[in-house]
Parts: sequence; C-alpha cells; structure tokens
Amino acid sequence: MALPELKPIAQKEGISPEKLETRVKEGRVVIVKNVRRQIAPLAIGEGTRVKINSNVGSSQLIHNFPEELEKARISAKFGTDTVMDLSTGGTEDDLRRLQEILLKEIAVPIGTVPIYQAAVRMHDAGRKIIDMTEDNLLGIVEEQAKRGIDFFTIHAGVQKYIVEHLVKHPRLMGVVSRGGTFLAAWILHHKQENPFLTNFDALLDILAKYDVAISLGDGFRPGSIFDATDYCQIQELLEISRLVERCRERKVPVIVEGPGHIPAQQIAENIRIEKDVCKGAPFYVLGPIVTDIAPGYDDLVGAIGGVLAGMAGADYLCYVTPAEHLGLPTLDDVKKGVIASRIAAHAVDISRGFPSALAWDQRMDVARKSLNWEEMFRQAVDPEVARQRHERQSPKKDECTMCGPFCALKLLDEYTQGRFKLHETNDDSK
Amino acid sequence: MALPELKPIAQKEGISPEKLETRVKEGRVVIVKNVRRQIAPLAIGEGTRVKINSNVGSSQLIHNFPEELEKARISAKFGTDTVMDLSTGGTEDDLRRLQEILLKEIAVPIGTVPIYQAAVRMHDAGRKIIDMTEDNLLGIVEEQAKRGIDFFTIHAGVQKYIVEHLVKHPRLMGVVSRGGTFLAAWILHHKQENPFLTNFDALLDILAKYDVAISLGDGFRPGSIFDATDYCQIQELLEISRLVERCRERKVPVIVEGPGHIPAQQIAENIRIEKDVCKGAPFYVLGPIVTDIAPGYDDLVGAIGGVLAGMAGADYLCYVTPAEHLGLPTLDDVKKGVIASRIAAHAVDISRGFPSALAWDQRMDVARKSLNWEEMFRQAVDPEVARQRHERQSPKKDECTMCGPFCALKLLDEYTQGRFKLHETNDDSK
Repeated sequence: MALPELKPIAQKEGISPEKLETRVKEGRVVIVKNVRRQIAPLAIGEGTRVKINSNVGSSQLIHNFPEELEKARISAKFGTDTVMDLSTGGTEDDLRRLQEILLKEIAVPIGTVPIYQAAVRMHDAGRKIIDMTEDNLLGIVEEQAKRGIDFFTIHAGVQKYIVEHLVKHPRLMGVVSRGGTFLAAWILHHKQENPFLTNFDALLDILAKYDVAISLGDGFRPGSIFDATDYCQIQELLEISRLVERCRERKVPVIVEGPGHIPAQQIAENIRIEKDVCKGAPFYVLGPIVTDIAPGYDDLVGAIGGVLAGMAGADYLCYVTPAEHLGLPTLDDVKKGVIASRIAAHAVDISRGFPSALAWDQRMDVARKSLNWEEMFRQAVDPEVARQRHERQSPKKDECTMCGPFCALKLLDEYTQGRFKLHETNDDSK
Repeated sequence: MALPELKPIAQKEGISPEKLETRVKEGRVVIVKNVRRQIAPLAIGEGTRVKINSNVGSSQLIHNFPEELEKARISAKFGTDTVMDLSTGGTEDDLRRLQEILLKEIAVPIGTVPIYQAAVRMHDAGRKIIDMTEDNLLGIVEEQAKRGIDFFTIHAGVQKYIVEHLVKHPRLMGVVSRGGTFLAAWILHHKQENPFLTNFDALLDILAKYDVAISLGDGFRPGSIFDATDYCQIQELLEISRLVERCRERKVPVIVEGPGHIPAQQIAENIRIEKDVCKGAPFYVLGPIVTDIAPGYDDLVGAIGGVLAGMAGADYLCYVTPAEHLGLPTLDDVKKGVIASRIAAHAVDISRGFPSALAWDQRMDVARKSLNWEEMFRQAVDPEVARQRHERQSPKKDECTMCGPFCALKLLDEYTQGRFKLHETNDDSK
C-alpha cells in the first residue's frame, strides 16, 4: 500500500504515515481489506490501537440467519473492529447468502474459516468431513475471496508430525479448534500432509490476487489451562513462523492466531515468543481464558486475559461471550462479549498512552466530577445500561443512591467552599 | 497466635504452620477474627490464597435492612472471604441492629468503617459531619469492637499537610473516599490534625484489647485514572507505612488499603511500593479499576485490575459491583460483584500454582473433555447460570448448540478411534 493510501489510516491510528509505512513493509502492521469492498481499510499491529473481533454464525442446531446478521449489527454498534462469520449451519447456499448479506450490510472487515464451508458442503451431500478434497478447500477460498471476504483463518500449521505426536502423547483436552480438528482427522484418515500446507503456494496465489489477509490459525491451541504452552502449541507456532516468511515473500498480509486457554502467568511469554519468532507479525489472541471454572462468565475471563495479552504486545483480541463452552451466543451474549473485549482493548490502549483513549476517560471523569449524569451516560461504553442502573432507584437528578447526602464530591465542595475544584482551564479540557 | 492455633489455618491455606507463624510474626500475614466471635479465623497475606471482600450496607436513600442481610448471605454463598458493612442509612440504632444481625448470621469476618456510624449519629441529631468529636470516634470504635466486629477501616493517613497540599494543588477528582472526605472536611474546618492520628495510641489500645485488625484506609485513593500514583496518594502511603510500624509494635494486626482507579500499566508498581515501604504488610486493593468509561461493567473492570494487582502481590481484593459509580447495588449486582472478584482471585491463585486452585480447574476440564454436563455445572463458579445458558436452547443431552455435529471433541474421537483420549490414570485424577 502506497503512502497516500496509508495517510488516512495513520491519522486514525494517531501515528505518522511514514512509521505506518515502515511497519506495513516489515509485516509488523497488516492492512485488512478485500480489494472488492468499499470499506475503510483496517490497520492491525504494532503501535496501532488494539483491535477486537466478534464471531457470528449459525450452527447445525440453530440457523437463524436474520439473528446472525443482527449479531453483526450489534457488534458493529458496540465497536467491534472486525466480524468473523463462523457459520456451520444450514446448507452451503444458506452460508453463501449470509456472507453476502454481511459483506453488504456490515462496514467492517469480514473474516471466515473457509474449511467450515467445506464441512457444510460435505454435510449437504451426506458425506463425512474427511471426504473433503484439496480442490474443495482451494476452490472455496477463491470463491469467498471473490465474494469479498477480507481475511481468512487457515490452519496450515496443523502438520502431520504434530498430529502424530499428539496421538502418542495425549494432552488433557486434545484438539479444540474446530478447523484444527477437521484437518487432524483428515490427516490421520488419509495419512497425508495438511492440504493447506501442501498447497500453500497455490493458496498464496489466490490471496495475493484479491489482496486478502491470511490469519494463520492455531489448530493446537490449548482447550485447557493445563495444555497451555506445551510441545504441540509451540511447535505449531514455530511452523507458523516459517509460513509467515512465505506470506511475506509473496506480499500477502499475514496475522498469527494464538491461544486460547492460558493461565495468567504464562500469557506474557506466549505473546513475546510469537513476536520474536514471527518477527513482529500481528498477534490475534482468542481471549485468552485464564481459568476454566467460569462458564457463563467467560466474557469477563477473556477480558482479563485480553488485558494481560495486550500489555505484553498482543494486537488483536477475539471476543469471548458468556455463552462460550455452553452454547451458541444470543444477541445479548454477543453484546456482552463485544463490550468486554472493547473494555479490555481500551484498557490496553490507556496503558500504552494512546491520546484518544485517554481523552475518552477524561471526558467521563470531568462529567463525573461535576455530577453531570447525562454526560456520564453519553460517555459510557454502554449508555443504556448505565442510565438504567442509575435511574432504576429513581434518585434525585443530581445524586446517587450509594452515598445520598454523604456524597464525597459534594461534601468536600461544601466544606472547602469549592477549593478542591479544578481550575477553570482544566475543567474546560473536555 | 500460637502454633497450635495456626495449624488448622495453615492446613486450609496449604502452607506449613511454621512458615505461617513466621509470616504472622513479621506482619506479612494477618489473622482476622474478633476474640468475641465463634468463626474460623481468616489468614490474609503473603503465600495464602487471595481473599475477597464484599461490601453491603444501607444509604440514606435506601435502607432496607433485610435486603442488606440478604446481600451478605449471597456474598457468602458465592465465596466471599469477608463482608464489610458500609451502612450510612437509617438511624444509628438501625445501623447497630444490622451489625448485630450480620455478626450473628454471617460466618465470615465482618469489617466496618467506624466513622460512618459517627456520620449517622450526627445526621440523627441534625448536626453536620464536622461536628463529630474525637470522643465520638474512639467511642464508636470501642462499641463496635465490643459488638464483635473483626476489622476496621481507619483513615489515619489523611494528614493535615496532605489535605492542605490538595487544596493548593487540586487533582481531577479530589477525594472520593467517603471516610477520607469526612476527615478532610473535619481537618479543614477545625484546622486540626486528623483525630485518628492524634489519638492513634488510644485507638491501638482498643484494637489490642479485642484483638481486632486494623485496615489503614487510603483516603487519597484516586477517583480517576488521571489521579493515580500522584503525590497525595503516595505521600499518604508513606505516612501509612509509619503507622504500620506502630501497629506492629503494639501487636495489632494491620492491613493496608490501596487504590482505586489505576491505569493498568501502573498497577504493579503500586503493589510493589506498598510491599516495600510497608515491609510486606497485606495489601487490600479496591478493584482496582483500569478505566473510567465502563459504568455498568465495573465488576469486569475491577476483575481485570484485581488480576493485575494479585499477580504483582496484592493479597486481598475488594469487590466492585456493576452498580459502582451509578447507585447502591441490588442483590443481583452483589452476586455479580462477588463472582467477578472470585474469578480474579482464583486466576491469581492459579498463576501462583496453588494446588487447590489447580485441582478445581482440572475437575472442570475432565468433565468438559468427557462432555459430562452435570459435572460441568457442579464445578462452575455459578452452577445455576451455567445450566441455564446451556439448557435454554434445549439441545440434546450431550451436545451444545455451538458446534452440534461438528463437535471437535467428538469428531476426533470418531476419526482416531479414541486415540486422543487420555490414559485411564489421567482420567481418574478427578
């Protein structure tokens, strides 16, 4: 991407166009957008605002397409930076239709896991996952790229020798990545290498043609904190680092996906090893989840992991909803997941001193200091919920039910004749 | 406390009685329990499980005592380690009655902020906060200690010169600690030193008599991320470190309270400076909150801060509910706040390698691996919510609506003839 095209992106990220250009050249920042789409390109990577992704998509048990579109709309409303369609429900035609609608209606980059469409095709034909062919897979990638999909998760790191190692040395949760499982099953059944790996050059041809980004999926990501940072996970990461080089040689924008379930003390090392072995490639983490005991609260658990990851250098956080490990998320779950990730990404941006992130908190604090409730609601990450929680107990307009007449802010004003108030110049900074 | 008395506590914490004894002697661990109460003593501090606190209590706008008791019950049910009664509502008699009921009904240590009772007394008499006297304050401490309260938050670090500094050099949110505000107002009005400081020896006499712990409150804790780690906050911490020494000389168990609102990148330094200047005194943090833009979601924001604090060495996390900054929490808010803190504390315990914490996650993972939903619900931090979220879409007993027939765990079993299953010995580890 040339400097003039990078200018508006750089401005939005608050960095100089030249710096952005260097990082894009080095692969430390990736610009995501399919050439066929009319959306704003998105920068992901070093020195840019932390990005978040929300997943939508049907399953074989629930395929309500209007609802999946609505999930994408809600995600965009609450600030997701990208949406991935992970549909595996309905027929292949249903899946195509949903992708077309998402591409038309949702003005953020849309990603997919192409092997899911292959799985649905097999299901439609009454065949098995292992019956999919190399041609199926590459054909679907090209079809989706042509449709306008902006980035693809491809599990090319799920290599035969690692799958065989795992068979001999099981871990607690085995393989929990669905794409990873499909490929591991295929590899074991056919006793052949991962078809995405054997056809990696052909795959890159397609991606280069449509200027589509690849996100190298981590098929061996741990599904339990006890499987974290083990041989399979790190060996796959090393294989991915070699694929990153091949993507860069072909000028295909490349992102690396990471775990998953990781205990808190291992998160920083996981981010640092990715940044080192993959020479700064943007790191896209799923959560991470720092404990397994909180189904129903995994949005919160993922936000904890997201902040730890972001502070160690992760660039892009995949949301986790409160339905994770329990079922397909509802509209409300999607909203909660996006807000949790949004808060996590924002907390990281603050820790990195991003001026626009700091300005947001300052607007809130100035409103809070002056007990300006309407402005507090406006500045809240979820204005509706903030207003509802404040007003449900019908307090007087300028006080809250927590402190009432013992409000610290008001008392101090009273006893100090406003001497604790900020100078006018500071108050005006909003 | 003698070695035999420490034995059951040490066993519960999974450390040796001798190690616990040394740490108690050095003030690195504090045992909380009023001599008059028949509850299990609670260890807080270095090398013990991270503890959490929930706040209950009426306000002048809402004083529904059965509801406050119910909040304490819910807190205990979801695993709070202590409950603080922060009532400022109703009359002084109401407040006394609630404390009595809490002490009788709730089998965890109960803490208070005695100055709140003084505030209610002034309110009852139609007088002002600044009319409270030194005798009022010390009398209330003794009255509450006699009643059985296990620990007190006392803002003795709110010293006159720091208040005067703040008047000359305002910060964004001034003082947001209610106890701190009451004292700052009193100091400015009377032009006298903090009465808790001038009477600190008399205060220690009372605490020593009833073997009650003191939690040195941080009146200047920041109320905005922009006020974090500033002169007032750190100067107060330094004053508190001198008071810690005086408590230790008198063998009064002492805990130090910390912020508050702190941006993520400043949390570790805040914990480390406390641990250093206060020579290992247990650190009790309020949240911390890492961004101010999420009213309605501050349980999540506080859990993020709690994990960052715990990983840096904090020992005791005060919960934050989703009602924080908006109003008095409801029963459901209290439940959410306790669960958020419980998850944060647990994630820290895992990061420190606590065997009992790891065992909990392992039980969950083994259940998850074998798709044993009933066992997953039993192991969930909130079994009811986990069951409800799983069952609302009425899936078949052994599958979830996320993956349906594309379940990674089942597929791999199918294609590998169970070769990814763990050996029996591992499966039995639950």
